[in-house]
Amino acid sequence: MKGIVYQGPRNVTVEELPDPTCQQPTDAVIRLTTTNICGSDLHMYEGRTNVEPGTVLGHENMGIVEEVGSAVGRIKPGMRVSVPFNIACGTCRSCNQGWTSFCERTNPIEGMQGAAYGYANMGPYDGGQAEFLRVPYADFNLLELPEGTEHENDFTLLSDVFPTGWHGVELAGMRPGDAVAVYGAGPVGLMAAHSAMIKGASEVYVVDFHDDRLKLASSIGAKPVDVRAGSPVEQIMDGTGGQGADSGVEAVGWQAHDPAGEEHPELVLDNLVQSVKAHGGIGVVGVYVPEDPKSPGRAADGRIGFDYGTFFTKGQRMGTGQAPVKRYNAELRDLIIEGRAEPGFIVSHELPLEEAPSAYANFDDRVNGWTKVLLKPGMTS
Amino acid sequence: MKGIVYQGPRNVTVEELPDPTCQQPTDAVIRLTTTNICGSDLHMYEGRTNVEPGTVLGHENMGIVEEVGSAVGRIKPGMRVSVPFNIACGTCRSCNQGWTSFCERTNPIEGMQGAAYGYANMGPYDGGQAEFLRVPYADFNLLELPEGTEHENDFTLLSDVFPTGWHGVELAGMRPGDAVAVYGAGPVGLMAAHSAMIKGASEVYVVDFHDDRLKLASSIGAKPVDVRAGSPVEQIMDGTGGQGADSGVEAVGWQAHDPAGEEHPELVLDNLVQSVKAHGGIGVVGVYVPEDPKSPGRAADGRIGFDYGTFFTKGQRMGTGQAPVKRYNAELRDLIIEGRAEPGFIVSHELPLEEAPSAYANFDDRVNGWTKVLLKPGMTS
Amino acid sequence: MKGIVYQGPRNVTVEELPDPTCQQPTDAVIRLTTTNICGSDLHMYEGRTNVEPGTVLGHENMGIVEEVGSAVGRIKPGMRVSVPFNIACGTCRSCNQGWTSFCERTNPIEGMQGAAYGYANMGPYDGGQAEFLRVPYADFNLLELPEGTEHENDFTLLSDVFPTGWHGVELAGMRPGDAVAVYGAGPVGLMAAHSAMIKGASEVYVVDFHDDRLKLASSIGAKPVDVRAGSPVEQIMDGTGGQGADSGVEAVGWQAHDPAGEEHPELVLDNLVQSVKAHGGIGVVGVYVPEDPKSPGRAADGRIGFDYGTFFTKGQRMGTGQAPVKRYNAELRDLIIEGRAEPGFIVSHELPLEEAPSAYANFDDRVNGWTKVLLKPGMTS
Amino acid sequence: MKGIVYQGPRNVTVEELPDPTCQQPTDAVIRLTTTNICGSDLHMYEGRTNVEPGTVLGHENMGIVEEVGSAVGRIKPGMRVSVPFNIACGTCRSCNQGWTSFCERTNPIEGMQGAAYGYANMGPYDGGQAEFLRVPYADFNLLELPEGTEHENDFTLLSDVFPTGWHGVELAGMRPGDAVAVYGAGPVGLMAAHSAMIKGASEVYVVDFHDDRLKLASSIGAKPVDVRAGSPVEQIMDGTGGQGADSGVEAVGWQAHDPAGEEHPELVLDNLVQSVKAHGGIGVVGVYVPEDPKSPGRAADGRIGFDYGTFFTKGQRMGTGQAPVKRYNAELRDLIIEGRAEPGFIVSHELPLEEAPSAYANFDDRVNGWTKVLLKPGMTS
Repeated sequence: MKGIVYQGPRNVTVEELPDPTCQQPTDAVIRLTTTNICGSDLHMYEGRTNVEPGTVLGHENMGIVEEVGSAVGRIKPGMRVSVPFNIACGTCRSCNQGWTSFCERTNPIEGMQGAAYGYANMGPYDGGQAEFLRVPYADFNLLELPEGTEHENDFTLLSDVFPTGWHGVELAGMRPGDAVAVYGAGPVGLMAAHSAMIKGASEVYVVDFHDDRLKLASSIGAKPVDVRAGSPVEQIMDGTGGQGADSGVEAVGWQAHDPAGEEHPELVLDNLVQSVKAHGGIGVVGVYVPEDPKSPGRAADGRIGFDYGTFFTKGQRMGTGQAPVKRYNAELRDLIIEGRAEPGFIVSHELPLEEAPSAYANFDDRVNGWTKVLLKPGMTS
Repeated sequence: MKGIVYQGPRNVTVEELPDPTCQQPTDAVIRLTTTNICGSDLHMYEGRTNVEPGTVLGHENMGIVEEVGSAVGRIKPGMRVSVPFNIACGTCRSCNQGWTSFCERTNPIEGMQGAAYGYANMGPYDGGQAEFLRVPYADFNLLELPEGTEHENDFTLLSDVFPTGWHGVELAGMRPGDAVAVYGAGPVGLMAAHSAMIKGASEVYVVDFHDDRLKLASSIGAKPVDVRAGSPVEQIMDGTGGQGADSGVEAVGWQAHDPAGEEHPELVLDNLVQSVKAHGGIGVVGVYVPEDPKSPGRAADGRIGFDYGTFFTKGQRMGTGQAPVKRYNAELRDLIIEGRAEPGFIVSHELPLEEAPSAYANFDDRVNGWTKVLLKPGMTS
Repeated sequence: MKGIVYQGPRNVTVEELPDPTCQQPTDAVIRLTTTNICGSDLHMYEGRTNVEPGTVLGHENMGIVEEVGSAVGRIKPGMRVSVPFNIACGTCRSCNQGWTSFCERTNPIEGMQGAAYGYANMGPYDGGQAEFLRVPYADFNLLELPEGTEHENDFTLLSDVFPTGWHGVELAGMRPGDAVAVYGAGPVGLMAAHSAMIKGASEVYVVDFHDDRLKLASSIGAKPVDVRAGSPVEQIMDGTGGQGADSGVEAVGWQAHDPAGEEHPELVLDNLVQSVKAHGGIGVVGVYVPEDPKSPGRAADGRIGFDYGTFFTKGQRMGTGQAPVKRYNAELRDLIIEGRAEPGFIVSHELPLEEAPSAYANFDDRVNGWTKVLLKPGMTS
Repeated sequence: MKGIVYQGPRNVTVEELPDPTCQQPTDAVIRLTTTNICGSDLHMYEGRTNVEPGTVLGHENMGIVEEVGSAVGRIKPGMRVSVPFNIACGTCRSCNQGWTSFCERTNPIEGMQGAAYGYANMGPYDGGQAEFLRVPYADFNLLELPEGTEHENDFTLLSDVFPTGWHGVELAGMRPGDAVAVYGAGPVGLMAAHSAMIKGASEVYVVDFHDDRLKLASSIGAKPVDVRAGSPVEQIMDGTGGQGADSGVEAVGWQAHDPAGEEHPELVLDNLVQSVKAHGGIGVVGVYVPEDPKSPGRAADGRIGFDYGTFFTKGQRMGTGQAPVKRYNAELRDLIIEGRAEPGFIVSHELPLEEAPSAYANFDDRVNGWTKVLLKPGMTS
């Protein structure tokens, strides 16, 4: 089969690879119909992680079940399924508590919890930017979708960014009626904004400095806050009559930079502490890492010296980390089926696998209009 | 001033009454701009309660603050305010826990908790279907609204039916993505449906047998279920692929009757137990009473022999009772201000006080199109 | 192997049976070290259910893993394990939401959710009052225990009654500091009382009329309420200064009877509604059934005409149903290991399998001192 | 009356002051029976805050109501009461949501929310280390206690440290069965440990390096972790079989120092991130401030560069800030009355007001055995 392989910083290629098979009785193999490029793939693409050259990328996967192992009973060949990016066993302590993002059995790396397809530090699993994908613990991990091809570009976002945005809002402890501040209008930030609207926010501010992204925020009823027009904190304070947002979401991560491109790892957390009211909550789904030699200052060691004194004085709360996709994806699927959620509004490109290398480059460069790229393995270029 | 006085079963009149004044330093007096007739006023109107003749009716009130007592500091004359139907002290054990509907200090009747304006068993407080109203514990009870007259017919529903419908959904433990079954498309049921949509239900079924009400349900994106077309349980089961609703709301009460008008006090609870899935939740905001000699069978003593064995076997949950309006009304106000909630869609009539007697009669007869009546004390007939 | 077989009302025998084996790759077989007689076994024993003669009884099981299927990876032969009474698949919608008690895949009976070992209506699974037991979905269902034999009589209660009592307290929404009223001092009621104490109740009232059981309640710091000494409602009201309990647990069920032995299916719910304060919660883990021809009046059809009017007027909440054991058993195991929970205080008898018939008879007759019987398959009589 | 006045760094004196009176109709005046010195008083005492010389100190107060204003109805002269350290209005948005610690009306300082007695930045309110105290919004703020003098040294801890420790455990999201790590065995840390035990922790680790404090931790069933004996993280990892604590509490604050006395503002947060498992929660009630010129490095500006990258990677949650005492104090009082909580175990000294200056000095020097000092205004020295 064909698949997208990481070769080194800013270098991915299309390669011919062996077809995956069921290795365990609990495995399934799926044929990909759609597989997306994620903003977090760019951390690897840019060489900011320790991912190994030769890795098949891709953790946002959906498709048709091709084959199942002998112990798989709920999932059957021919089913259309979404594959959560987390690979979870379904029986460990973390999985029992609903935290599939911190599965204790699927990541063999010492001291690590949580596994994923084609991702740095997340275990020896090939990604799904390819024609086929092996899925461990298929009965537990796979989400069944309605037959056919309807809603394909909405459903494909169930594997990661829609649940991740939703998780950000959950971690923030958002309640109906809240004013919500979302920092970052990339796919995850836009999904957080969409989630907040669906869950009954009274208003959602979305902070960014890219025109195409701010426009998408407007299109779903959120209020765009353009950093180039002045302090986002002041804009949010003005919008809320000086009270601040009730809750906030961080959808940027440690590589936060200003419009000029300079990195300020503390910038977004500082802004959130200022933008959110006392006793408000902040959900952090933008990625922070314990080590990145290319980060400025102490952030190279994962140390983010944000304004903790104010955070404490305001009695704020903060939740963090990768989303346990399985906790949310069934309800989000149902919202899509009923037309109550339409996350596909972020999709800008549908391309065949062969065009992945240029798509990575354009997405990484934030070329205007490249918001979200879907790869369609069955599409001929 | 003028006010609406209960004289006996199916008999209310407009009377000249003394103007209310601040009796306690914590009181305020408001001038009513809008005061609604509530479905629960009909229980009194029909003579199904022990309300005293001579009582001024009306517990759904809003207006302008006219005067405040010496200990009132947050609320000031001239403010536009919504008055929750619950009269609460703000300092007892129940109020401390957020249950203003069960205030332990404001209802002097032995063994009763919770007070209201112009209502049977709820204490010696005049209602607000009048030109002026005395509000105890004004700083605690009154909700400030934006100046002016905008959204008047939305805001007026903040005193009771919108929070009551919202409370029904809360008691049901509804979560985003749920399919929700609402029994009863009167004002409270429609507000429950509106609330469920705002909070991210995937679909909302609304059961009734009045054309005008079912049409209003459709108008907000809910799915009308017409009892005259067959079993509502079967219709909901069909709609949900046999899985049943995830949660349900009872918005009918003990006077439930079939299309032919015969009362069946157990009917709605039985239907909900059948319509809702195993381990689902049911919120009951339709009123049930401990005693009503006019009820059939054991319901005269408050005993409702619904199918408890199935309720238990399905592991369902049920929450009940009057809504603590203050828990919700600020967030609902904010949703209205931002255009995210528009509860006023249920309003069918705006009338001067003088027309209250005929309005009561039409509303009680469920004359087609009489969904919700607002009285406007300042309007000239 | 030897096992206890239901032959008909009040008739169980010890029979020689074929040894169970792994039938599915996800199965395990365990060798029982302890298997208990449950109060709910008595419903079958007394002929109040439709259980088939020939059924091997026993759903409270623990032991040593003897053999595992090819897809079992977390559980290994030789492990000491507790077996939750619920048989759950771990991958259906209910299991995903933590409701293993309503698994949608393991009970093949049409319209039923939730399966169990050796139990009426709960699927075709043999019970564990035997030497060996087949356990489906072993990786998901089995709880690992520390090696050895320590705490055996505490751990054996992890399969049902300790989590069931705990669930009753959870369903009641009990919070630390609450005064809690538990009706019924059988094993489940005593476990509910123990749970409430562990979770920080300020005081726990336990209502019964058996001396041995009331004495056990006292032994864990609860306050015994003897029905023979007068109205339990009044005793609880007196104890709480007239305020009532903050939350209550029903641990009796539909066969509730007075000290004279007459059945009153509504009695306990009525008492709870009276005993618990306004806006308090009630957890119902005593069993109610949709059909029992031997029940008096409308309870034969599952209809329990309790005082619903007062329940509503007080704004109370009620949760019901079988416990999802897996939600609680790991934390309860940890509490036992650390000496913070000692549920074994209810154990009155440890007997070899061969003595099960007489043990059933004594337990059913509530012979003084027969509180909880453990069968020890390895014990020689 | 006599009162304790802050004169400057490490200098407090006993002064003759005018008696307080009711200034507002909602005020009460209480006669202090017990008033404690708090660890947070030491921040002021050491000159690490901007508190004004001349301020009467003391925010941990209880006593007998002497006089009430004309609008006070629930509280009556002669009642024995506990005074929460937070001064709250009971009617603003924060108070409505249960966050009395962030009251929006009682602190007149621009941009500040939340007020307290005798405390830097918390408004113009005299403290209660005196014979009398004025209490604003008495009906809302005061907690009624049983008449008499029983449990005085337990009840006196209801004004701050017991609810603050409890709040730390709540912010951590602790659940029954959890292993809990508490950093700091001062009064707040010990109260957090006591709270965790009451709420059903399976085990509680308490980290410190003072013998008297570690011994008190042992006395309530917690497991002392002596920093002088090696890394507390390793000790907790060993104790939990390598899994880490389920939740953690920070009860030290920004002045954290090592046994040698050197300050490391990031130390405790780093240790908690390491000690707590993935997806675990951390409650921070040790104080952090936005500005302290005497702090080392960037902490002078409130910036605490802890290991955020690991915090995120582990998906941990963190809640912070001053406790809303009123949310907890009624239930904690009930636990004391029933003998289920005995927070007074931390009390080391009961002294007359006159001995406050030397008590401050000894407490500040952490003289062995000076754990918690109660001042008794009625006591003659």
